Amino acid sequence: MNTGPRPGGLTGLARTLPCLQWGRRYDRGTLGADLLAAGIVTLMLIPQSLAYALLAGLPAEVGLYASVAPLLLYALFGSSSALALGPVAVVSLMTAAAIGGVAAAGTSAHVAAALTLAFLSGAMLLAMALLRLGFLASFLSHPVISGFVSASGLLIAATQLKTLLGVQAGGHDLRTLLPALAGQLGQVHGLTLAVGACAIAFLLWVRRGLKPLLQRAGLAPKAADMATKAAPVAAIAVSTALSWALDWQGRGVQVVGHIPQGLPPLTWPSFDPALWQALALPALLISVVGFVESVSVGQTLAARRRERIEPNQELLALGASNLGAACTGGLPVSGGFSRSAVNFDAGARTPAAGAFTAVGILAASLLLTPALHHLPQATLAATIVVAVLSLVDFSVLRRTWVYARADFAAVAATLVGTLMLGVETGLLAGVLLSLALYLLRTSRPHIASVGLVPGTEHFRNVLRHAVRTSPALLSLRVDESLYFANARSLEDRINDAVATQPALRHVVLLCSAINDIDASALESLEAIDQRLRAAGIALHLSEVKGPVMDRLQRSDFLQGLSGRVFLSHYQAVAALTPEVVAAPGPAAAPTSAPRP
Amino acid sequence: MNTGPRPGGLTGLARTLPCLQWGRRYDRGTLGADLLAAGIVTLMLIPQSLAYALLAGLPAEVGLYASVAPLLLYALFGSSSALALGPVAVVSLMTAAAIGGVAAAGTSAHVAAALTLAFLSGAMLLAMALLRLGFLASFLSHPVISGFVSASGLLIAATQLKTLLGVQAGGHDLRTLLPALAGQLGQVHGLTLAVGACAIAFLLWVRRGLKPLLQRAGLAPKAADMATKAAPVAAIAVSTALSWALDWQGRGVQVVGHIPQGLPPLTWPSFDPALWQALALPALLISVVGFVESVSVGQTLAARRRERIEPNQELLALGASNLGAACTGGLPVSGGFSRSAVNFDAGARTPAAGAFTAVGILAASLLLTPALHHLPQATLAATIVVAVLSLVDFSVLRRTWVYARADFAAVAATLVGTLMLGVETGLLAGVLLSLALYLLRTSRPHIASVGLVPGTEHFRNVLRHAVRTSPALLSLRVDESLYFANARSLEDRINDAVATQPALRHVVLLCSAINDIDASALESLEAIDQRLRAAGIALHLSEVKGPVMDRLQRSDFLQGLSGRVFLSHYQAVAALTPEVVAAPGPAAAPTSAPRP
Repeated sequence: MNTGPRPGGLTGLARTLPCLQWGRRYDRGTLGADLLAAGIVTLMLIPQSLAYALLAGLPAEVGLYASVAPLLLYALFGSSSALALGPVAVVSLMTAAAIGGVAAAGTSAHVAAALTLAFLSGAMLLAMALLRLGFLASFLSHPVISGFVSASGLLIAATQLKTLLGVQAGGHDLRTLLPALAGQLGQVHGLTLAVGACAIAFLLWVRRGLKPLLQRAGLAPKAADMATKAAPVAAIAVSTALSWALDWQGRGVQVVGHIPQGLPPLTWPSFDPALWQALALPALLISVVGFVESVSVGQTLAARRRERIEPNQELLALGASNLGAACTGGLPVSGGFSRSAVNFDAGARTPAAGAFTAVGILAASLLLTPALHHLPQATLAATIVVAVLSLVDFSVLRRTWVYARADFAAVAATLVGTLMLGVETGLLAGVLLSLALYLLRTSRPHIASVGLVPGTEHFRNVLRHAVRTSPALLSLRVDESLYFANARSLEDRINDAVATQPALRHVVLLCSAINDIDASALESLEAIDQRLRAAGIALHLSEVKGPVMDRLQRSDFLQGLSGRVFLSHYQAVAALTPEVVAAPGPAAAPTSAPRP
Repeated sequence: MNTGPRPGGLTGLARTLPCLQWGRRYDRGTLGADLLAAGIVTLMLIPQSLAYALLAGLPAEVGLYASVAPLLLYALFGSSSALALGPVAVVSLMTAAAIGGVAAAGTSAHVAAALTLAFLSGAMLLAMALLRLGFLASFLSHPVISGFVSASGLLIAATQLKTLLGVQAGGHDLRTLLPALAGQLGQVHGLTLAVGACAIAFLLWVRRGLKPLLQRAGLAPKAADMATKAAPVAAIAVSTALSWALDWQGRGVQVVGHIPQGLPPLTWPSFDPALWQALALPALLISVVGFVESVSVGQTLAARRRERIEPNQELLALGASNLGAACTGGLPVSGGFSRSAVNFDAGARTPAAGAFTAVGILAASLLLTPALHHLPQATLAATIVVAVLSLVDFSVLRRTWVYARADFAAVAATLVGTLMLGVETGLLAGVLLSLALYLLRTSRPHIASVGLVPGTEHFRNVLRHAVRTSPALLSLRVDESLYFANARSLEDRINDAVATQPALRHVVLLCSAINDIDASALESLEAIDQRLRAAGIALHLSEVKGPVMDRLQRSDFLQGLSGRVFLSHYQAVAALTPEVVAAPGPAAAPTSAPRP
């Protein structure tokens, strides 16, 4: 991890391998803290890794495999001391949608597609790290992410209904999922439903009721919190024992079944071009979503310790982790929010905690797997449902409705698109809509006519403030950079003003909000200047910013300009219409205009 | 046409049918002027309509048909007094590319595809008029249009080479066209080449040499100019006569051949969904390009007479004209630049001139078509090559290279894309690249630290101007609206400043260039405020614009803000660090900072 804003004195290797930094300072105290955190996270990760593999439509052991090598690689390359890697809900849902499109669940091609998806995602993340493209993630706006995560949470809960009801129903969006479930309601398996309902009730009770109980029994609040996080393990242990004792499998309850005992296998992704083409877009979306989730979790936790994480280093670490997943039989991984928060609260001090977690999962997959044979799938579905419901938060709809309709439209499109058309379409719709609405807004700039606020050198909108103006001078403030999409708006506005203000002799563009003038807008300005000159009016500019002025000086616009360029708008008005600056009253005296 | 900026007193019908307006004022003088202009434009349009039909890969008569009904409809709906409609070079090239992809040239399916393309384009233009989407054309930047038109000119000239050489070579981009031509060089037809070369030499000589000659012979400059525009008619008359007399057809020269004599047929577009799907994107691009070309020609000519044209009315008129073309055996039409300029110079005063031109073309297709049988195709190709070479202008490359690299990239992508990958890919590449580069630029805003310009109330960049500052106060001017793509940049910049300026007590954001703050940016501002507050620093805002302030007041950001909102930045600095405003020297005195 980086403890300062810029690790100036580091060699290139130490910058690429943050473990060389924190490893040098590693001591017994840090080891103890990391080991404790790793133990707690391991208990949390065992059920999660099994459950998210099933959510992705893959055999349960794939989740365990994805929780070993990726965690070790992140410990080498990662810059966050608290981020806990592994299978996560949203990425597993996206994996299910992507690989469900290319192969049938339960086939070896399906598992191969998951490996290939992890490989492509890892390669894309590494490429983004090399090209320093981490900034691309900023094109996912907060409202889009928020809508996507909420919709994914709902969608994940819906996909688990079939497991909780003991029926078969495919689909990766509500449009296909709900009718499929409705058609199966007659086949609901009572015992499965009972197991799932009890597990959900227990897990919800643990969240709400157990923590106060433990605290009253004398446990420290933090320890009580930790204990409740291990509740899924208890649910699994009890239901597995009951399932074995009462032969639930024989009575029709779907169990996890045989999980191969042993080390994660060495695997190799498919290099079939058709498969790559089919998985390219999903891999890109998984990369971006996984990266955004990891970085926002990492930054939130780092800020609490006044540390920083480097987004490009995170790209590198996530890329390496996903390549690791692809080579050891796993599925795409990312940093999970709840798991990382537990890791942080349990006191993890370095990424070594993740490596110890990997060892814990390895031990589990060597020793524990036979015991998991009788684990009912409904119990795992219950842990998923309870976990993802915390992702669902519709308050963003209300907040954006009040604050900005464009943001509301982006949230709504993402939500509805994700629920009805699936994760990929929904996410793309949200991103494209938010970009289109931004472009649309900048193509219709706010243009205010401004006047002098009496007693100051400050200019404000004539419609909102009591200001001084002159009929001979029009001060226009364009509240947008001038570029091709809005170049014509300014022409239209000035044409209208010239037609309605016969005494006009000067137009001064107050350029304080113009951050750029592109080639199209420059042509428009030249056309405006020519037209004004023909009408006996001079065009002036004021408060042109340095970068804009640099650029204008590379064209011959300023040489041909009919008017002047003023440092401040006050200087422009004082020079062109001194009576406005001198006059005592707040309103303009209709004086005759001085000729330029 | 509209003579004022807003035709306030018009009824709805007169607004939809501008002919009701100018028709009321129509008199004998106007009639004479319109008839003269129509005569000259008819002479120009006969060879152009034949040539552009052949350019589109269609029978020659299709061009004549497209020059009757569309012109009549434009006379009813159009708002430009000078725009001369009909087949134009760039749109015909786009038509060739679009219908060449769905049917083989010379088949009836090919002609049906052209009709259907005109129908779809007309329907899209009407839909854009109804939804008032004319503004969408502004997303085609000047550099993209310029690069596209130049590349189209070159591409059109290249497609005519096969006709001039008398060989067969297909292709709608240089990548396929040039190798095909190279493979045919052995089959060049000598007589065809001679005819084409003589026609080109004659037409170029007319442009450069004839006009001075006529003027020396006593013709007025304008009349001399008109006479040179009729030169293609002379070339056609002479080469047709020679072709008939010397039996060039028998000697292997491709001639226009049989053109059916008669009125344009009543036709109906295909309603095959597969064809519609294949032609939808080309139809959209043709609509936008035709609209942009027509509106820019119309506006240029209208401005010379201090008139205005209404973009949405032009959408309606172009849409009706293209529907008319689809129902009378034509191809997509648009307003042509050179033809409209001739119409304007010849004195056309109302859209009635276009209706008279339609009558002229109708007469030609009834009476003249048998005479055109022996017209060599090479002569038509020569008129096309000479006409389109005036479209080619690479100076935009140099100008944008000097002025703005983003614009240069857009031009270059459009040019290379159009030449190498065809008109559709090239145009789309240019549009998408120019939008992406704009988004990229706004995602990395210029953020300047500013100080007081001594003797004024004006603040400027500390790196460019000698200004006064205080170590206790950081004045940041963000030169961009705050939105999701750049929200993090500000966080990073403020974090860095806080880390390097230990005496800092106040951060004031000068919001004069912030035209909007979206929901993502609002979250970032809240995060910045919390982090600054934790470090004992207050965040203030100054010069927040009306629309931004309205929006902020709908959130609870301002209630929670650690600092204040000031009307002007000068007031903020005067209130927070009075010593900066009072101090005599240009540099800041390192005074101790007052606590908030």
